[in-house]
This record gives sequence, structure tokens and C-alpha cells, in this order.
Amino acid sequence: MVKAIGKTKKTPGIEVIDIEEPALGPEDVLVRVKATAICGTDLHYYHWDAYAERHNPGLPRVLGHEFCGDVIKIGENVKTLHPGDRVSGETHIPCKSCIFCRTGKMHICKDMKIFGVDTIYGSFAPYTALPEVTAVKIPDEIPYEVGAVLEPLGVAVHAVSEAQIRPGDFVVVMGCGPIGVYAQQLAKLAGASKIISTDVKDYRLNLSRKAGVGEAINVLRSDPVARVMELTNGVGADVVIEVSGANSAIKQALDSVKRTGRIVLVGTAHKPTEVDTTNYLIYKEIKMSGITGRLMFDTWYQSIKIAVNKLIDLGVVTTHRFELDDAEEAFSLIDKGEGGKVVFLP
Amino acid sequence: MVKAIGKTKKTPGIEVIDIEEPALGPEDVLVRVKATAICGTDLHYYHWDAYAERHNPGLPRVLGHEFCGDVIKIGENVKTLHPGDRVSGETHIPCKSCIFCRTGKMHICKDMKIFGVDTIYGSFAPYTALPEVTAVKIPDEIPYEVGAVLEPLGVAVHAVSEAQIRPGDFVVVMGCGPIGVYAQQLAKLAGASKIISTDVKDYRLNLSRKAGVGEAINVLRSDPVARVMELTNGVGADVVIEVSGANSAIKQALDSVKRTGRIVLVGTAHKPTEVDTTNYLIYKEIKMSGITGRLMFDTWYQSIKIAVNKLIDLGVVTTHRFELDDAEEAFSLIDKGEGGKVVFLP
Amino acid sequence: MVKAIGKTKKTPGIEVIDIEEPALGPEDVLVRVKATAICGTDLHYYHWDAYAERHNPGLPRVLGHEFCGDVIKIGENVKTLHPGDRVSGETHIPCKSCIFCRTGKMHICKDMKIFGVDTIYGSFAPYTALPEVTAVKIPDEIPYEVGAVLEPLGVAVHAVSEAQIRPGDFVVVMGCGPIGVYAQQLAKLAGASKIISTDVKDYRLNLSRKAGVGEAINVLRSDPVARVMELTNGVGADVVIEVSGANSAIKQALDSVKRTGRIVLVGTAHKPTEVDTTNYLIYKEIKMSGITGRLMFDTWYQSIKIAVNKLIDLGVVTTHRFELDDAEEAFSLIDKGEGGKVVFLP
Amino acid sequence: MVKAIGKTKKTPGIEVIDIEEPALGPEDVLVRVKATAICGTDLHYYHWDAYAERHNPGLPRVLGHEFCGDVIKIGENVKTLHPGDRVSGETHIPCKSCIFCRTGKMHICKDMKIFGVDTIYGSFAPYTALPEVTAVKIPDEIPYEVGAVLEPLGVAVHAVSEAQIRPGDFVVVMGCGPIGVYAQQLAKLAGASKIISTDVKDYRLNLSRKAGVGEAINVLRSDPVARVMELTNGVGADVVIEVSGANSAIKQALDSVKRTGRIVLVGTAHKPTEVDTTNYLIYKEIKMSGITGRLMFDTWYQSIKIAVNKLIDLGVVTTHRFELDDAEEAFSLIDKGEGGKVVFLP
Repeated sequence: MVKAIGKTKKTPGIEVIDIEEPALGPEDVLVRVKATAICGTDLHYYHWDAYAERHNPGLPRVLGHEFCGDVIKIGENVKTLHPGDRVSGETHIPCKSCIFCRTGKMHICKDMKIFGVDTIYGSFAPYTALPEVTAVKIPDEIPYEVGAVLEPLGVAVHAVSEAQIRPGDFVVVMGCGPIGVYAQQLAKLAGASKIISTDVKDYRLNLSRKAGVGEAINVLRSDPVARVMELTNGVGADVVIEVSGANSAIKQALDSVKRTGRIVLVGTAHKPTEVDTTNYLIYKEIKMSGITGRLMFDTWYQSIKIAVNKLIDLGVVTTHRFELDDAEEAFSLIDKGEGGKVVFLP
Repeated sequence: MVKAIGKTKKTPGIEVIDIEEPALGPEDVLVRVKATAICGTDLHYYHWDAYAERHNPGLPRVLGHEFCGDVIKIGENVKTLHPGDRVSGETHIPCKSCIFCRTGKMHICKDMKIFGVDTIYGSFAPYTALPEVTAVKIPDEIPYEVGAVLEPLGVAVHAVSEAQIRPGDFVVVMGCGPIGVYAQQLAKLAGASKIISTDVKDYRLNLSRKAGVGEAINVLRSDPVARVMELTNGVGADVVIEVSGANSAIKQALDSVKRTGRIVLVGTAHKPTEVDTTNYLIYKEIKMSGITGRLMFDTWYQSIKIAVNKLIDLGVVTTHRFELDDAEEAFSLIDKGEGGKVVFLP
Repeated sequence: MVKAIGKTKKTPGIEVIDIEEPALGPEDVLVRVKATAICGTDLHYYHWDAYAERHNPGLPRVLGHEFCGDVIKIGENVKTLHPGDRVSGETHIPCKSCIFCRTGKMHICKDMKIFGVDTIYGSFAPYTALPEVTAVKIPDEIPYEVGAVLEPLGVAVHAVSEAQIRPGDFVVVMGCGPIGVYAQQLAKLAGASKIISTDVKDYRLNLSRKAGVGEAINVLRSDPVARVMELTNGVGADVVIEVSGANSAIKQALDSVKRTGRIVLVGTAHKPTEVDTTNYLIYKEIKMSGITGRLMFDTWYQSIKIAVNKLIDLGVVTTHRFELDDAEEAFSLIDKGEGGKVVFLP
Repeated sequence: MVKAIGKTKKTPGIEVIDIEEPALGPEDVLVRVKATAICGTDLHYYHWDAYAERHNPGLPRVLGHEFCGDVIKIGENVKTLHPGDRVSGETHIPCKSCIFCRTGKMHICKDMKIFGVDTIYGSFAPYTALPEVTAVKIPDEIPYEVGAVLEPLGVAVHAVSEAQIRPGDFVVVMGCGPIGVYAQQLAKLAGASKIISTDVKDYRLNLSRKAGVGEAINVLRSDPVARVMELTNGVGADVVIEVSGANSAIKQALDSVKRTGRIVLVGTAHKPTEVDTTNYLIYKEIKMSGITGRLMFDTWYQSIKIAVNKLIDLGVVTTHRFELDDAEEAFSLIDKGEGGKVVFLP
């Protein structure tokens, strides 16, 4: 029996539980988890909301999906991983046989399952087991703590890649949580001449300021659209990356971006947004697309190069480190918006 | 004094008026109009609605902007056109000096004026004058009637180009007015294996059927999304081109297109559409963009090749021909949805 | 023991041999071959040249890699294929673990093996065995003979996709062998306004004429570049697809294509070509790229749609059908350039 | 009469001449030149070679085309420039009416003329006159000396844009002259994780080292291909930008780049290069394209943002400043390869 962070009942809260070591299927790898981070998705279970109800493979269960660790055992059909390999968790478990999986778009598999969400056993434990396809080998020179955030970093890498930033571009990133700040750092890395970052919480805006990537605006106190227009002589931003998931931010994105500009949506809004397709998408030929997860595995190769060469400071948003026993304190911090990336060291 | 179709007062209706020949500025060309077609935009003036009020450079005025004719006189600074040249009207009058005009995107100029909309003198007359940049030289082998519809054809060419159709693709085109049917013909020309066309009016659906480009569905009587899913084994269409401007059609576009599919918006909806960005643009990585007008002049070169080589039947939607004197009858037909493309031969 | 077409010795010629049924590995499928076609690559073994020496896994061996048949047995780890499935052979056997295989580019795997080339057992036999990844399931409505040419068709589909043909484009395809003629048919399907096809053999030019896809020019008798320039008013072709592999054709491609045009190389020249990079690639910004094989499996999904919907006549280049016993006659025809696609029906 | 650097006879050498002020056509602007730089092209006239003979509009003539200055007078048809505007010279004089000029590709106009090459009056003088389209307005905050090198910077910006560098990419830049070093700085700005620079001259390699953009290799002393393969585990570079124009460098580019990698050619080789299209462009699907000049005016908007925001150190390659009287010394330095960018301050 091992200690883990998970759920035994369908009620709010988070528990430290004792649970058996995970079983190892023929296509799985068993991993000694060395660092694992809380994602916003995990909060659904802390609140036990509709999402948690919908994605509940059974109880008791272990939560967590952002992690890094060492492979200690492999299933009999595993070919590309070996005991001793350092791996980072990809989260997505694709079917490998649908038309999307077979055409280089495994990350939007028609029959996707999510590790630590749709599976009983997640990563908030000293050991976890997951399919070979969901464990990405990374170089040993990437520290465990950095390896544990390659998954959220990858979302930002994927978004910035879709945004096609060119050196000199004026970029707006809405949202200053970990993925938002990574996206801001990556926009700067890609040569942006100016980055405007927005959020409603000063704690998060300060994370962005700490990363030193531009001007951080609290949208509750000042109008980001006006500021963008002022700085661009009324032309607008070349690119807007929307990470907040706020409906109002999506509208600000449309107002901030220039004619023929590009909006990349990352933040998942809880409800639809009223989009004036005529005056924005048509008359201004603004392009709007979204991204989810990471390209499997193009984004990973790119993220690993960024991490190995330390092209951005990946630790800047990691604000707290905890033992598994401190689950309640850790979740509470995130829930109150008083933490950046919070990491457990099991 | 010449006879023309236009407006002398801000009330509904259409008038046949006598008006002086247009003046010729130093950068203008004077054209003998040989064929000119009614566009949906012209109906704003027939109804004298808010749009008409907003785009009213003065009265009396001559309406019309889709046309073809012969240059008979040129202003002193005109360089690329000469008397005797056959020209088709582009409609857009760009400033030629803003950042968009200077980077190959003249069609979304920041300070655009529209010929026959923002100008006193349109094309529903035996003579019209317009800037050199707005008159496109076409080969003499293109008949005047075809030349008069190159402008709306160009909208469809631009849309299909943005849609990046590949041979074999499954395509949905929403809307069976002239631009919709052109887009359907062009999708077939681009190698689509199957085209589903939709509309709410049987008259228009019959235009599509006459063009012979696939299956035409009246969305009031059957569900196009279900039909697309049935024919694609639940995968969805590769591409949806939305030409109707109906909010419900935009939603059907999102429901019809496959993961990573592409939606191109052409029809201008009168109000915003509720877009579930999370479940469509993000989780399915659907790309949504719009197009307006024609690339100046890339679309024109392409449209001319299509017309000269008769790659599609450009006459299929042209249902009526009238003298200028029959303005009321012509406008009334279009207004009732009982005409396809209606052409005047001044 | 079964009858097959293959080699027992390293000398010119082709043999009908008796050989044991192929063994079935845990990741393989056993297929009852119903139709299998000769590819130009097979001629290396007919002549036993340097290529044959380089790609010789052992003797005796069975040749052939373009085929279609029914799965009759599957290895224990096979997941996506089942007995009764109709499959077409992909030819490429990728490693599935290199950076290219892991980023959607399996077709240019760093450690590629070729079925029927680098393996003992090819498809010129009633039975063959090959890895699951190399057998592509196709719908039963595609006849076996068509299924046997989806592999070379896929090369043309891949090439035309890379060429990004737009409706109205002027296209040149150099080479009128099966892949060349497929490419010409596909260019027409994609909406080309005019296609110029070239070859040095009248037999092949007649295949192109039979397909009815444009003007076929024997370059020994007239100058294709002059013809292209005459038809395009000196501008040049929008796209050139080079399938012949002749060094002189590559130079003609550079001379035929317009400024900013695109050259897609498919034919493998035996030696390097002198390319004037300054006057073509730089001063005219001509883009030159090549393609090999088929995207795994994007090209296959597209090819299947084309075949199922009969968007082009896939039988037009199939000129002869033989029994396995007629190997010598079949190979001799191809060698003399007196056959298009030649199919065995084992 | 004003003093200028030019030629009075068709022999080697450079002269300081007295010449009349340039005449001002109706579409021209007259500029007070404040800084103007020597380009490699100017050396053709120093040596009076075949290029000089071919591009000789008459003698006496004034050389020079890279410059910055103030508009002091405008022709009667000039619309977008005014006395007092600071301008930088674009060099290219497009016809504005060919198919390329009309489709956003003015920089490869079919009937291009080159300022200071095909015209009598260049920029090595206190005053020059040139068409409005060839003088780009820049913000006053860009110093004259920087404004004088925006033209060569633009070549590098255009090349890096074509190269589509992504954050983390491994980039090779062949050639360490001014454009090469700018390209290296821009590759770093675009987020390259590693840049290998090559040249045959230590003076130039030291310019690259001074810019601090990676590892500079003298190809006469060590093998850049081996070094690239060592650092990329045999995969190869993501992108190679070839600025040297050496045939051997183009071959090294093919050997250095990864499968599906991209080679952008900028340096104009004096003779064709033997390209093994089969083993590189086809079997590795390497993409090869070239660029010339700057996109008019997309590249300029981008270059100006880079200069205004000081995203790279644009002065790093400017090694010498001279009066017009010192023409011989300045040209001699460049000719011997002992200068980076050399600027005259007339």
C-alpha cells in the first residue's frame, strides 16, 4: 500500500489515501513519480462539480496528471521505453487507430481518454502506471521539477506555434496563470517586440511581471484594448493568445487584434461567447482557432529543446513545493488564486 | 443627361432617373457600361434601411457596382488602362497608402470606400466613372454578361481559396444564392468528392441543383448536420463554407465540420452568433476565418482564368436580363427571392 | 509450397519459383494476394543492377510490393486489422520510434525498410505477410485491381498535394508513366485550366492522351518550355510536377515555371542536376521540393476517397493483366516501355 | 554641382566626381542623403566586371543604393511622402503593373530596375532623387546610420521569415558578411536554441562572434557538417540559411539539414551547383527556396519594428565610417574583406 492524493467519495475536498500500487498492463510503464504538479483541471475534483461527475472512472481514485519520474518496470509489449528512462506525462491516451490518430493528430483522437481524469490511477502518488504512448522520454539533464511542468508548457508551446509569431510582432496574452506566463515568455522568445498581458488577479499579474515579459494589465482597472490601440497607432496587435477562458477576454481579443490578425484560443470558457463574425472575422479577415493539448509528439521535441537549452526560465511560475501530506494546503492555495504552479515531491 | 437607376429620396423603392454624365477625375476612367448586375447590397437602398442611411454620399445618386464595359476615356494620371480596354468593376476603392494596402491586403484597407455605395455614381447607367484601381482589365473573349459577375464570382473564388479544398474533400456550402452556387461549382472544380448545399428557399436550392454540384438540402425540412454525419461515418465535413449569413447556419457549420476542419465565413450575419469556442474551436481544433471581397488582384487573375477557360458554367445562376427601365420589376424579383443573378443591359 | 515470382540468383532475368508460405510474426498480417502490379523499382532485380545488390535481404526471394488482397490471419499483437479485411500494401515499413515517425512523418523514417525490396517476401505470390503498419485497410467497394495501384496513385496524390494546385492553375507534368498520368489526372481534378504533359516515348504520351488531360508533348520533337511560354504570355506555369527523373526535365522545370512558382520533384534522377540557384531559386523565388512515398496515412485516406468516388479513371493506365506464370512476358513489356501499369492476378 | 562617388569611365577603380544635382520627375522625391553604405554589388563597378557592363545606364554616373536621408522636395504626383520625412532606400524600382506587382510580389517584378545600378543617380552623394515607391518612410527615432542599413537588414528579415524558424530550432547560417550576421542575430531573436555560423574569412567570423550569436566555424579549418551532426545526434539542422553564395556551401547546406528541413538561399552563386535532388530533395523531403530583396512593404514594416525596438544590435557589423572623399580607402577595405558594413556620411 502506498500513500496518494485522491478521492474516496463524491464530495468536495481532497484526501490523502492509502491505495495499492498500480497494476501494470502489457502496454504500460510503471513510474516512480519524483515531481507532480496541480493543474486547474484537478480543482474540478476538489469541488466535485459536474466535470468531476462526468469524468469519474470509479472511487477510490488517485488524481494528478502533470508529472515527471523514472520508469522502473515495463509491460511486455513496450518497445520504446526502458527501466531507468526519465519520463514526463503527456496526459492524453489516444486510441491510436482513428482517422485523427492515423494522420498525425493523435492529440485530438476521437476516442481520447485522459490520464488521471478518466483513469483510476493518476500521478499524485509515489508510483503510477500509464500507457507507453502517454509517457514521453526526456533527457536526464532536465530536472524532475521542470519535467513535471513540460505538459502545461507544451500547451503554451503549441499555442505559440499556432500563433505563428514573427520577430517584431506585437502580442497580447490574456491570462497570467502558469500557461499564460509560459506563453508570454515564449512570445518573447519568438521575438515579439511588445507583449501586453492581462488578468483580473494581481497575484497572477505579478507572476507575469516577475517573468519580465512586458506590460501586465489588470482588466478590472484599465482597458487593455485602449492600451493596445494606443501602442499600435490604432492598427491593433498582430497576434492575441487567449488563455483565460473568460468570455469578456474573447471579445477583447477580437477588439485588440489587427485586420488579418490571428487569435489563438487556449482557455476553455464555460459557456459560448457572442462573436460578431461579420465585423471581425469577415470584414477584418481575423483568423480564429483554438488548440488543445500538445502535438504528439512534435510539441514535445520542441519543448524539450526549450527546456534543455534553458531558453526561458521554467521555474518562474513555480511558487510552492509540498509533500503529499500537505494536499489540503496545496489545493486551497490554488483554489484561492494564491499560487502559481504548485508541485508535490512524493 | 443619361438615364440611370438610382435614388432621389430616402424612401423605399427604386427609381429610373435622368442624371448628368459622370465627371472624370485625373485618376479615373470613364466606362461605357454594357452589363451590370444587382447585388444583395443594392437591396439596402430598395428598402432604404440603416445601411443605406449609413452609406449615403448624397442624393440624387446612381446605384450598382457589379458591371462590365469598355473604357472610353481616361484621366491624365491613368497608366495601366486605355480607351478600348474591357473592364470589370472591383467595387473596392482602397486608399493605397495604409499598412494593409502596402502589404498586399488592399481589399481590407483601413479607409476603404465602396464604389456605388459610398460614391454618388454607380454602374446602373450607360456610363460610369471610377478610379483606375477599381477597374480591372479583362480579356475581350469574356462576354460582357460574364464580366459583370466576375465580382461576385471573385468572392466565391476567394472563399474557396481560403478553404484550401483538396481533391476528395467532403464540402458543405451553406447558402444557394449566386455566390453560394459559384462556391459550390468551385468546390467541385477543386475536386470535392461530395458537396452538400443548404438553403431555406426551394427557388435557390433549385439553382444549385441546376448547377449539378451535389445534394441540395432545405434546412427547414431536413437536418443537414445529420446528413453530413451519415455520409462521413460520423467524422464530419473537411470544409464548410458559410455564405448564408444565418446565425443558425454558423452553428450548423460548427456541428458539421470534422475535428481540425476549416470553416470559411462569407455571409454577413446581422447579429453576433453564440459560438461554443471550448467544444469546437479548442477541443476539436476547428479553424474559423472569414473572407471579404477579392484579393486585389490575385483573385482576379484566378477568376479570369476560370472564366476564359470556362472551367465552370458562369451563366447558370443568371436567370433574368432587363433594360434599365425595368428597374422596379428586377428589384422586386430579387427582393422576393425569385431571381438568381439579374442583369441589366444598359 | 506456393508459386511466386522472384529471384534465386544474382543474375538478370525473372523467375517463377516454388517457395514456402510466409511465416507470420506477432505484428504481421497474412494476406491472400488478389492483384499485384509491377513497379519500376522491380526492374532493378530484372536487370540485377547495383540497386538490387544493395537491397538484397537474401535469396531465394519473392519480389513485388504494389498489391491488394484479403487478410486471412493476424499476428497476436495486431490490433487494427482482422481476417476478412481488404488491404492495400503501403510498401514502407517505418521504425515507429524515430523523431520522424513520432512527428507525423513516418514516410521518411530514418530507419526505413521497404517491403518486397528489403524483405524476403514480396507480393508476387498468392500469399504474403507484412507488418500491420504496412497494410492499409480499404473499403470492399474498391476492386482488387484498383486496390493494387493505390500505392503508386498515392505518390501522385502526395505530389499534387505538395504542389498546392488552385483552380485555374497552369500545370506542367513531366513524365507520362503511370504516376505521371495519375498526377495529370489529379491536376485536372484539382481544377487546373491547362495541363502540359511531356515524355520521350510516344507509347507513354498516348497513355496521357487516352486519359484526356491536356496537351502531350514529345520533348525529342518539340520544346515544352517554348510551348508553356507561348500559352502563358511569357509568364510561365504556376506549378511543375517532375516525375520523369531526367536531369534535362528538371532544368526544363526551372525554365517553365513562373516567378514564385512551385516545382515538385517525384522522379528520382540517377545523378545530380546542375541547378542555377541564383537565377531561378533566388531571383525568381521559385520553390523546389520533393516528395517520396505517401503520407502515412493522410495520403491513403485521400486516395481512398478518390477511388471510392471514382473521381478519376484509375484503370486508364492499366494496360495488361497476367498470370504469375507469365512473369517473363510481363517484365519484358515494362522493360521495353510497351506497357503502362501491368497487373498480376495470382 | 555636388560631389559624389561614381564612375566616369569603364575601368576599374572608384572616383570622386562633381556632378549636377539630380532632376526631379513628377513621381520622384529629392532626398538629402545623411548616411549611405557600400553593398557587395557596388564592387562590380570598382572592378568594372561583366555585371557592371550589363547594368550601365550611362556615364558619368553616381553609385550607391543603401541609404537614409530626409525628403526635401517631392514631384507633383507624389502622394505618400512629404518634405521633412525621413526615408530609407528600398533599391528596387518595380513597374507596378505586371502580374507580380499586382499580386503583392512587387519585389520580383518582371521588369524591375535597380536604383543606383540601372539608374544614373545613386546614393553616394549629398542629394539623390528616386521614385516614391522606392523611398520608404521611417520613424525619426531610427538614426540615419541605422536607416542606411535597413535595406540589407531587410534581406535577412525576409530570409528568416521564409525560413519559418520556431523557438528551439537548430539553425545554420552560412556566410558572416553583414547580411549573414544580421540573419544570425535574427535567428537568435526568433528563438533558435543553437546557431552555427560559417565563413572562410576569420575577419567575418569575428564579426559573428562579436554579435554573440553562436558558434562560428571557419570551413577551411573544420567541417561544419560534422559539427552539426554531432550537436544534433545525427538528425541535422532544422533550418539552413545560405548567405555566402559559395557552391560548396550549398552542398553543405544539403548535408547539414534534417529530413523535411528547410534551406533558404540568399547568397548568389556565380555558377550552377550540382544538386543531388534524389537523395536530398526527394528521399529526405528537404525544401529549398530562395529569396531576393525585401517584400514591398511587409518586410519593411517588420524591419522598422525590429529597429525601433532595438530587438537586435544593428550597429554590430558597421565597422567604418567615411567622408565621400575617402571613397578609395572605403572600397579598398571592403574589397580586401577587412570591413563589415562601411558607411559614408555625405
